[in-house]
Amino acid sequence: MRNTAVFAALMACVASAPLAAKEGMFTPGQLPEIADDLRAMGLEVSPEKLSDLTDFPMGAIVQLQGCSASFVSPEGLVVTNHHCARGSVQYNSTAENNYLENGFLAQAKGDELPAAPGSRVYVTTEISDVTARVRDGIDTLSPTERYDTVDQRVKDITAECEQEAGYRCLVAGFYGGKEYTLIKRLEVEDVRLVYAPADAVGKYGGDIDNWMWPRHTGDFAFYRAYVAPDGSSAEYAEDNVPYRPEHHLKVSAAGLDDGDFVMAAGYPGSTQRYARLGEVENTFEWTYPTFVTLLNDWIDTIEEAAPVGSDARVKYESRLAGLNNYEKNLRGQIDGARRVGLVDRRRQREAALDAWIAADAARGPYGEALASLDTLTGESATAARTNFWYGNGTRAQLLSAAQRLYRLAKERDLPDAQRESGYQERDMAFFRQGLQALDRRYDSAVDKAEWLLFLEGYLAQPEAERVAVFDEALGLTGVDDAKQLDAIVDGYYAGTTLDESETRLALMEASAAELEASDDPFMQLAVALYDYERKLEAESEEREGRALALRPAYMDAITQWQRSQGAATYPDANSTLRVTYGKVLGGSPRDGMAYLPFTTLEGILEKDTGEEPFNAPEGQLASIRAGDYGPYALDSIGSVPVNFLSDLDSTGGNSGSATLNARAELVGLLFDGTLESVNSDWDFDPRTTRTIHVDTRYMLWVMDKVDGAHGLIEEMDVVR
Amino acid sequence: MRNTAVFAALMACVASAPLAAKEGMFTPGQLPEIADDLRAMGLEVSPEKLSDLTDFPMGAIVQLQGCSASFVSPEGLVVTNHHCARGSVQYNSTAENNYLENGFLAQAKGDELPAAPGSRVYVTTEISDVTARVRDGIDTLSPTERYDTVDQRVKDITAECEQEAGYRCLVAGFYGGKEYTLIKRLEVEDVRLVYAPADAVGKYGGDIDNWMWPRHTGDFAFYRAYVAPDGSSAEYAEDNVPYRPEHHLKVSAAGLDDGDFVMAAGYPGSTQRYARLGEVENTFEWTYPTFVTLLNDWIDTIEEAAPVGSDARVKYESRLAGLNNYEKNLRGQIDGARRVGLVDRRRQREAALDAWIAADAARGPYGEALASLDTLTGESATAARTNFWYGNGTRAQLLSAAQRLYRLAKERDLPDAQRESGYQERDMAFFRQGLQALDRRYDSAVDKAEWLLFLEGYLAQPEAERVAVFDEALGLTGVDDAKQLDAIVDGYYAGTTLDESETRLALMEASAAELEASDDPFMQLAVALYDYERKLEAESEEREGRALALRPAYMDAITQWQRSQGAATYPDANSTLRVTYGKVLGGSPRDGMAYLPFTTLEGILEKDTGEEPFNAPEGQLASIRAGDYGPYALDSIGSVPVNFLSDLDSTGGNSGSATLNARAELVGLLFDGTLESVNSDWDFDPRTTRTIHVDTRYMLWVMDKVDGAHGLIEEMDVVR
Repeated sequence: MRNTAVFAALMACVASAPLAAKEGMFTPGQLPEIADDLRAMGLEVSPEKLSDLTDFPMGAIVQLQGCSASFVSPEGLVVTNHHCARGSVQYNSTAENNYLENGFLAQAKGDELPAAPGSRVYVTTEISDVTARVRDGIDTLSPTERYDTVDQRVKDITAECEQEAGYRCLVAGFYGGKEYTLIKRLEVEDVRLVYAPADAVGKYGGDIDNWMWPRHTGDFAFYRAYVAPDGSSAEYAEDNVPYRPEHHLKVSAAGLDDGDFVMAAGYPGSTQRYARLGEVENTFEWTYPTFVTLLNDWIDTIEEAAPVGSDARVKYESRLAGLNNYEKNLRGQIDGARRVGLVDRRRQREAALDAWIAADAARGPYGEALASLDTLTGESATAARTNFWYGNGTRAQLLSAAQRLYRLAKERDLPDAQRESGYQERDMAFFRQGLQALDRRYDSAVDKAEWLLFLEGYLAQPEAERVAVFDEALGLTGVDDAKQLDAIVDGYYAGTTLDESETRLALMEASAAELEASDDPFMQLAVALYDYERKLEAESEEREGRALALRPAYMDAITQWQRSQGAATYPDANSTLRVTYGKVLGGSPRDGMAYLPFTTLEGILEKDTGEEPFNAPEGQLASIRAGDYGPYALDSIGSVPVNFLSDLDSTGGNSGSATLNARAELVGLLFDGTLESVNSDWDFDPRTTRTIHVDTRYMLWVMDKVDGAHGLIEEMDVVR
Repeated sequence: MRNTAVFAALMACVASAPLAAKEGMFTPGQLPEIADDLRAMGLEVSPEKLSDLTDFPMGAIVQLQGCSASFVSPEGLVVTNHHCARGSVQYNSTAENNYLENGFLAQAKGDELPAAPGSRVYVTTEISDVTARVRDGIDTLSPTERYDTVDQRVKDITAECEQEAGYRCLVAGFYGGKEYTLIKRLEVEDVRLVYAPADAVGKYGGDIDNWMWPRHTGDFAFYRAYVAPDGSSAEYAEDNVPYRPEHHLKVSAAGLDDGDFVMAAGYPGSTQRYARLGEVENTFEWTYPTFVTLLNDWIDTIEEAAPVGSDARVKYESRLAGLNNYEKNLRGQIDGARRVGLVDRRRQREAALDAWIAADAARGPYGEALASLDTLTGESATAARTNFWYGNGTRAQLLSAAQRLYRLAKERDLPDAQRESGYQERDMAFFRQGLQALDRRYDSAVDKAEWLLFLEGYLAQPEAERVAVFDEALGLTGVDDAKQLDAIVDGYYAGTTLDESETRLALMEASAAELEASDDPFMQLAVALYDYERKLEAESEEREGRALALRPAYMDAITQWQRSQGAATYPDANSTLRVTYGKVLGGSPRDGMAYLPFTTLEGILEKDTGEEPFNAPEGQLASIRAGDYGPYALDSIGSVPVNFLSDLDSTGGNSGSATLNARAELVGLLFDGTLESVNSDWDFDPRTTRTIHVDTRYMLWVMDKVDGAHGLIEEMDVVR
């Protein structure tokens, strides 16, 4: 029911498209280096200011578990994506108070609800370069010694930093281990849910619209950070007080329009922009296609073993959603790689780099490092292929739990500082939570069906990819008829007590000898596989040790080569704070089609079927039908903008990132990329990469017209 | 692999969009009436000239069975869609000479191949108004007498016209029977296949892209019309000569661009633009959803009964494609109707018409006619619902054949002029072909599975919708357990000989008494149902007789009301020549998305997977990669345009229509509408209705660069 004004606007399209999108997830420290371009693109605040993490606006940017967020009031109000806070909504929902279905809005601070266990807000307070401490003298070591040395130094630096209570520290490697940075973060443990719209707004379009444009998702929610009255980090307590951040963002309800400058600040997880051709080929020609096939079988297996309506299905809904999500992502990556010729592009880039190296004899060492790196890449690919089915064959959930428990018992024999990461005292809270959470996502019949699927795949492989110790322990030696598997596997589920939460938690205290004496079949299997797993780990660490010597040279070559072309090299994403900048911009997903940069309220009417996930609340539909836009409309589209597209460079972990305009006011929250963009993790193609944001005007419109969250609107600094 | 120039062009989009698309499938005779608008839109030739069917360009426009076409050389060369000529390609294909796969190009006229049996080119030579002859004095008759009188007069006028050998005549009703026109057409019986590109060009995208944009289909092929040396119509004969049309179209390779004037001339089949609200509601709320469910079951049934790779599947491929096609169409219609609020739009239109009628007491009779028409519409809907499952329950192919044969025997007792249409001597060639063709699409196991599906549906209906005579004849009285059906139905297939082509053809000569004595179970069933079917037919004819009195009044009211608003009323499509005009224009299929008006050669590279239906010939891909555009590129898109969109008003039967520019030069062939447009048959919505054309520049490029059809290019008048 699009009106004429909107239609005319739709057809007006992009008046002036920039020549190319802005690739790059820059560290804040890099911004002064590219200040000219930032200003040319339209940035009005100083790039130098942006590089100071304790100044405005970066002081307002925070990290959650796997998501990004930002402060939007002086009283610790945090805005992030609905999908980043949804676990907390679910955690607080009951049959009587179904907040997923109805949304949640605290009427006063006292009504705010504790977020799901483990929820954290991380506020970065300090960043320092620790490259010398980590890398000093490692060049002359053997690969395994080099790996161990770096690993130990990283743990030591982290431990030293965390001696100050209430802080969680992180040593992050950049440029393939060429540089290391220590990031010190205040760990806010008392996080409370303030407001989340109903799923019918916040998750509108659901899995169907996931990674899709056009999009109409109200993907926003609010937390509040609480600390002890003295300002220090503390667990949930009645007398905790709202955290008062030094900086918070203003929220814009002004005229962000097509072509305007935007930037996003957040915590992208990981990218492979500098992966060598061999890895790219192996990934797109073998790993992804193989995994897509397996994922489809896996999904079918769960759907059959856990029929719709069964208790088991409830436990596996989240896994099914994750697998379907991943399958769609991988298919998108495979299709996208074919369409843009990703492998060819990488081949061309490497040829160009080779030519640059060959042009000057002084660059000879780069060539040698690259040759060794490519050999190593080939070895890694071979190892991954060989271990693919063994890796899947050990996916049974109770086996994984047994393996973690036995590893813990072994590691506990070492001083804490020397233990493997994930098994140190600082990890135990999450370790315990992981063992507990298993109850909510485990059903023996489904787990067995999954394990059988993987073991059948394992049995179907050539002899060379069978693992003798696994065959022996599982009684598979000489077996290649999958029909025998059923009886073998049955014994495991009949004999185990690891399906009981108390058993698992109690075993956190067991010694290695006690576990070795266990008659639990999964534990026996875990013990039997232990040495083989350590051997695989040692091989992997040896390869990583070699990479620690080779990748820095590769990144040096890339950096010098790109600098010679006037381009700044940025490091691959590594869950540290990054800034990406560009424009509000539509796109062309394929020949003959264009994405318009904004969607509108009327698009919700168009999509709405009344059936989940296209079941907007009746009140919302009525407000749209009535044209009740309030002060939130954008003239050029004749409606309230719901979501918008930009050419920003983002990936997983960026969810919830503050999208800022030229004056660093909040204009949206980054929450997704288009399906054509999913392989931008490997290769940023300006023709296809588009990032999706929820517009703050839609957020404010929903708060104002649908959910009546007037108190929060007043608490924020809304600017026009 | 889109280059930068193309990308920039894509983003430039529509510079100036018109306010609204041009609804209307106008008869050529109406064009002088709308001459001002035609000129304002950009037409350069005289609208008066366009209305003369024997002048240029309309003299070049011809009709095929179910398709449109046009002459493009003085030697009878006819261009139409690949999908309109594909039956002839298939008919001539063998394992050694697979023209579907490889395409076909006659090197000289002597190599041209006979088109599939029954192929015709109809050249309109005369049009005359016969309204008075048809309608004179019918107002005072009873509904059934009125129907019979009109039916008989139409047959008589047709017979009189066809006394001249070589002509096929047609009396077409317009405005719901308010006007009747006699159309006299030369029937060219010797039609030959000249050139068709391979399926990998002409059917590129196949069923997946059907009704979709963006599109890259080379949907063109060439026939040649042949006549006896004396110029008269004649069956295929060696010494026939190419027909020399008085007019043929010039083919443009010039700069047709976004926003340019285009018009299409062709033979749209049928539309329901003036259907009353009751019919629209019944269709979109009951008929279509019910049929979509049935179609899905039906498709599943055939796929199961005729597994991939079986002989049966070969016979049913075409039916499966048709059912899938129809299912996609109906879903598109249902979705589209919901999206644009089609039912509400009709309700609003009728309310506005009611208000116009109420505004003047002199319009009172219109109101009365509308009330009666709505009563009639309700009765028709009830009858359709009641007979829905009985109608399906008689779909078994051999039962249909038996019913046609018995009806023929009965009709043959009457003088030819009084027989039911379809059973006259003029129909016998097609009747025989129909009986023969059954062999190629019948398999007893599949037919039985289909019949069982329909009978199960029938059994599941309430008692009131069961038909006693059907129950009795089939032994279903008192049966409501579907398990008993199998044995009943088995007897039919075991006992029949109607599955033999000779039997069926021989029975064309049998008397009614002979058929009544037949022991063939299907024939016995046909005889048993005969009186009941005639009763249904009589009821339907009685309703049609009432409609013949009421619909003209409704159309009068509509016409006067629209004229009062400055709009010209056009009649619903009825397979007669129509002209539709508008612009090359992209669209917005939904909020946040835009269709660009042209697709490009590079889009083929993007889509191509090497797997049917995205398997362009290697040579074509190589030419595209090499950028070998020849003189066929459009600067504004930086490539050769493949397909384009317009806002023209079209429907089934328009396939192959000449798309003409302002100078009436051929710029494309109309071949499809977008999925958002499929319910334009009910309601032309300018926001969503878009027609898809193959660009003549792509046609010429394929002929030149891919298939080397240089002789044909020379034969045509290509203009720039």
